[in-house]
Amino acid sequence: MSSSEVHKVCLPPYKTTIQKLRHGLSEIFFPDDPFHGFKNQTWFKKLVLGLQFFFPIFLWAPNYSVKLLRSDIISGLTIASLAIPQGISYAKLANLPPIVGLYSSFVPPLIYSVLGSSRHLAVGPVSIASLVMGTMLSEVVSPIDQSILYLQLAFTATFFGGVFQASLGFLRLGFVIDFLSKATLVGFMAGAAVIVSLQQLKGLLGIVHFTSKMQIVPVLSSVIQHKDEWSWQTIVMGVGFLIFLLTTRQISLKKAKLFWISAAAPLASVILSTILVVLMKSKVHGIKTIGHLPKGLNPPSSNMLYFDGPHLALALKTGLITGILSLTEGVAVGRTFAALKNYQVDGNKEMMAIGLMNMAGSCSSCYVTTGSFSRSAVNYNAGAQTVVSNIIMAAAVLVTLLFLMPLFYYTPNLILAAIIITAVVGLIDYQAAIRLWKVDKLDFLACLCSFFGVLFISVPLGPAIAVGVSVFKILLHVTRPNTVILGNIPGTQTYQSLNIYKEAQRVPSFLILSVEAPIYFANSNYIQERVLRWIREEEERIKSNKENELRHVILDLTAVTAVDTSGLDSISELKKLLEKRSMQLVLANPVGSVMEKLNHANMLESFGPKGLYLTIGEAVSDISFTWKAQP
Amino acid sequence: MSSSEVHKVCLPPYKTTIQKLRHGLSEIFFPDDPFHGFKNQTWFKKLVLGLQFFFPIFLWAPNYSVKLLRSDIISGLTIASLAIPQGISYAKLANLPPIVGLYSSFVPPLIYSVLGSSRHLAVGPVSIASLVMGTMLSEVVSPIDQSILYLQLAFTATFFGGVFQASLGFLRLGFVIDFLSKATLVGFMAGAAVIVSLQQLKGLLGIVHFTSKMQIVPVLSSVIQHKDEWSWQTIVMGVGFLIFLLTTRQISLKKAKLFWISAAAPLASVILSTILVVLMKSKVHGIKTIGHLPKGLNPPSSNMLYFDGPHLALALKTGLITGILSLTEGVAVGRTFAALKNYQVDGNKEMMAIGLMNMAGSCSSCYVTTGSFSRSAVNYNAGAQTVVSNIIMAAAVLVTLLFLMPLFYYTPNLILAAIIITAVVGLIDYQAAIRLWKVDKLDFLACLCSFFGVLFISVPLGPAIAVGVSVFKILLHVTRPNTVILGNIPGTQTYQSLNIYKEAQRVPSFLILSVEAPIYFANSNYIQERVLRWIREEEERIKSNKENELRHVILDLTAVTAVDTSGLDSISELKKLLEKRSMQLVLANPVGSVMEKLNHANMLESFGPKGLYLTIGEAVSDISFTWKAQP
Repeated sequence: MSSSEVHKVCLPPYKTTIQKLRHGLSEIFFPDDPFHGFKNQTWFKKLVLGLQFFFPIFLWAPNYSVKLLRSDIISGLTIASLAIPQGISYAKLANLPPIVGLYSSFVPPLIYSVLGSSRHLAVGPVSIASLVMGTMLSEVVSPIDQSILYLQLAFTATFFGGVFQASLGFLRLGFVIDFLSKATLVGFMAGAAVIVSLQQLKGLLGIVHFTSKMQIVPVLSSVIQHKDEWSWQTIVMGVGFLIFLLTTRQISLKKAKLFWISAAAPLASVILSTILVVLMKSKVHGIKTIGHLPKGLNPPSSNMLYFDGPHLALALKTGLITGILSLTEGVAVGRTFAALKNYQVDGNKEMMAIGLMNMAGSCSSCYVTTGSFSRSAVNYNAGAQTVVSNIIMAAAVLVTLLFLMPLFYYTPNLILAAIIITAVVGLIDYQAAIRLWKVDKLDFLACLCSFFGVLFISVPLGPAIAVGVSVFKILLHVTRPNTVILGNIPGTQTYQSLNIYKEAQRVPSFLILSVEAPIYFANSNYIQERVLRWIREEEERIKSNKENELRHVILDLTAVTAVDTSGLDSISELKKLLEKRSMQLVLANPVGSVMEKLNHANMLESFGPKGLYLTIGEAVSDISFTWKAQP
Repeated sequence: MSSSEVHKVCLPPYKTTIQKLRHGLSEIFFPDDPFHGFKNQTWFKKLVLGLQFFFPIFLWAPNYSVKLLRSDIISGLTIASLAIPQGISYAKLANLPPIVGLYSSFVPPLIYSVLGSSRHLAVGPVSIASLVMGTMLSEVVSPIDQSILYLQLAFTATFFGGVFQASLGFLRLGFVIDFLSKATLVGFMAGAAVIVSLQQLKGLLGIVHFTSKMQIVPVLSSVIQHKDEWSWQTIVMGVGFLIFLLTTRQISLKKAKLFWISAAAPLASVILSTILVVLMKSKVHGIKTIGHLPKGLNPPSSNMLYFDGPHLALALKTGLITGILSLTEGVAVGRTFAALKNYQVDGNKEMMAIGLMNMAGSCSSCYVTTGSFSRSAVNYNAGAQTVVSNIIMAAAVLVTLLFLMPLFYYTPNLILAAIIITAVVGLIDYQAAIRLWKVDKLDFLACLCSFFGVLFISVPLGPAIAVGVSVFKILLHVTRPNTVILGNIPGTQTYQSLNIYKEAQRVPSFLILSVEAPIYFANSNYIQERVLRWIREEEERIKSNKENELRHVILDLTAVTAVDTSGLDSISELKKLLEKRSMQLVLANPVGSVMEKLNHANMLESFGPKGLYLTIGEAVSDISFTWKAQP
């Protein structure tokens, strides 16, 4: 390339403020352009597409076949065998009557099968949301002494959670859940799993008076304080079933084909333990059982929603937190299995589906539900093809509700504790934590923060801590961006970090710096100081090596993806400071939005054609050429 | 360049975790390398440098001359003539006895002259911090009925503010104040100025029963409700002096050389109005005056600090908020005038100086002080050379405190109101707001948010709103980064946005995308979806134009300055998704830290040498070459 060939740096095509605003809003709310299929279609076709868009059932129902049905029946029955014992257990975890767990495995899956777009999601109560709801509500209202109020608050929180979820989806604010980063979720889930498991010692040891607190210290001290209440019969039986369940889990983990072993184990344990208790009931007394459960379908509960009164704020808060947690789980599970089978799940649509299903649930005696990771995995492994497996599961729950409830009378509580522990153990993903440590220390730190935050501060605060840590990470990166000194790679027009590329060479009398962040109010002072320090250090180096004096400082703006007024002020000031020291500040390769801002701030004129280049290479060759041509 | 010349993408030199941590921490806390002068010095020299570092007085005192002293005396007396009436007025604004304003113009300037590194800062009480302190304290404690407690809380808040400021400086967390971006400060200050001016209607109209609230609605309705208390004598005199003061201000603004007109006007008005009141006192009764002020120096007040009791939290909160506000003003003023005279002010050291001066002030009957913008400008224009002008000013205040206090007995309150309004009118920087609108619409929005937040919600919440808006702006940029489709500029190895550079050309069967942000948990889903949409749109375009099939997607990572585990997962998943559609994902020019993460996540192998290039140009030529060579 000859030194005279210089390309002009162009401004982006002119757009009015309204156009920019429209573009910006469409990127924020419709980045996936969800209605692109609707363009250039007839009126009728648009109607059909619209129906399919809002009710995905219309997408797959016309092509549904007997073959698909067979797969769905098998997988539906499999997850039902998991959903029934887990439903009862998780309701217990939320301090709700066990029957509510079954109700919640009946209505929501039916609603989801109409609205949901994931083919593998198994819908029902989940451990984390149950735990958080139980903790938050029972801190204020006693589930035993004020059981009606407690139930009202649980349904109301579910309703608010559903409204929140559906509005996030409807307003296309789905990206909000992205702020619960995977790294912090790993820590949060592990912390919650530890707390839940320790809480289950109540059932497993047969303790009657247990703390309702959720931090690790009161839970552990409660276990030790009530040593006199430990019941050896409960312990023997509980630990026995726990070992059985954990073993079946381990087997299924080793061989994915044997998934049915761990899927069938909970129901088998329930049946077996119930028989055992019935057989021994005249001899052994320490073992507590579930007791009477009412037969029949979900009673309506819309009259129990609680829209004013002293606890409204509590219901709202609980709804928001359980809502966002269950949403995160549901959407993540949906995305995971969609990626495995190579289809797309629209996050915002899923949120609307989950939200509507919870709103409907809150009016039919259900508490908060979502897609469960463990049951969805079983569903996937059992060969589920469509959401019909959820319908089959709901049918199985229906049969249970109508006819089988008396059978649970002698089911011991300890088996529920064992089922919960087995389920939450899977939430402790130590391999993911190790990977975080290996790949990204800051992510690992975020993970640790939310883990210990949950253990020692509070479970419901966990997501807040997680979000806080994640946002702090972003701000740290923006506040202290990297600046790199570049050199030319001989024989090319490429400039790369001197520190990384040993063949890269300094250009005499030039200092070429790359700023690796947008220049913002939060870092404009820092960048200015840091650039001045680079110049000072470079001058010291030049002095000790007796090289050519430093004359030109090139700022490579390739990675400066945005700039605000503070950033522009900093650049201007830097230019003036350098001019006072008879050095020239040159900008290279500003992106479109930065060029626009430079233009609006009238800085293009002050830099002039010799102060702004498309590439570092052109800047260096053109300036050297001009410089040499001078006398 | 021949197609065979391909440069290897290198990893940064290996560093242990400890080394990385040390580097990271030194970039966060010592980006300016403050101790670089200490390297390779003798023990004695280091001691001298250390003294000069912590007490800048040792830097300039040895070279101080009579000539400098003359300038400093003139400027010192000039700012004293402003500081005395403003001190009394601002103390009133904080609901404190007027004498506290004078105390605060005596001790803190002396302390600052030893510790401070700005040569032009004029230290004393300022309007914003006075307003915020007055609002926050008087919301809980009545300054009239509980005057001792109120005074205790004011000193205690000043102490906490000082501790907070000094610790920010000592812990080198000075960047915290950068989060109060200039854009939001413009809005905040304008809002506060409007509120303060409206509040002064109390003094200017002679109203006795005035609201202590600080939102615009109660203030305005209070003005109208108490119409019967308006005193026409006060109004006539007040408006007259206000017009006089505003006129002098306008004259000085037009001609910088006439700065002394506006500098002398407040004191002149005080004297004139006092004489007028004395002359008319037998005839006119509606005009309220300052009344008795005690003579004498600052009494010690360390015994009034309040370290436990019900209002401790209030004092702490007030201290934090006034502390950060006054710090922001002081540091910004110091930086502004340092830039004009081409010397450096170390933000962290300034914070320690301001903090220590407030801590000392709180023990000597002073409330929160900092560098005042208006008085510093006068100081600068009057030719101040060093901080000695602060000492001269303190001496003038000393004389006032010892001998002149009785003269203020008949000074009317209305003149204080007029002085405050004239001072805060300068805070309404509508030109800055217009510039924000022109250059950066989002900055303008942030400015509006803090303006209206202050007016309608609360003044102390103002900074919080401002920080919130600023952080939201950063998060928005990170959550929805720009992705740009690139083309080759003919005859070069440069690739630029197709949208901006009309000469740029698509490379057949390639799609080249530049991602303009770090790939993080907060945007990894978005970027994945957005890239897939670009591919879909490109395929539709290719189909309608009947061009070559799309085979290679190059992601230009130049502006991807960081990546976390979620980002890596997204890239991996994108790669798999594209492979299923028989397309290849290629990465170009990852920066050092991204290369490290790719390596740790074992992704370098999965991409292989044909999936990772140093530049887009090399990627395109090498892949095309290989592709053509295949049968």
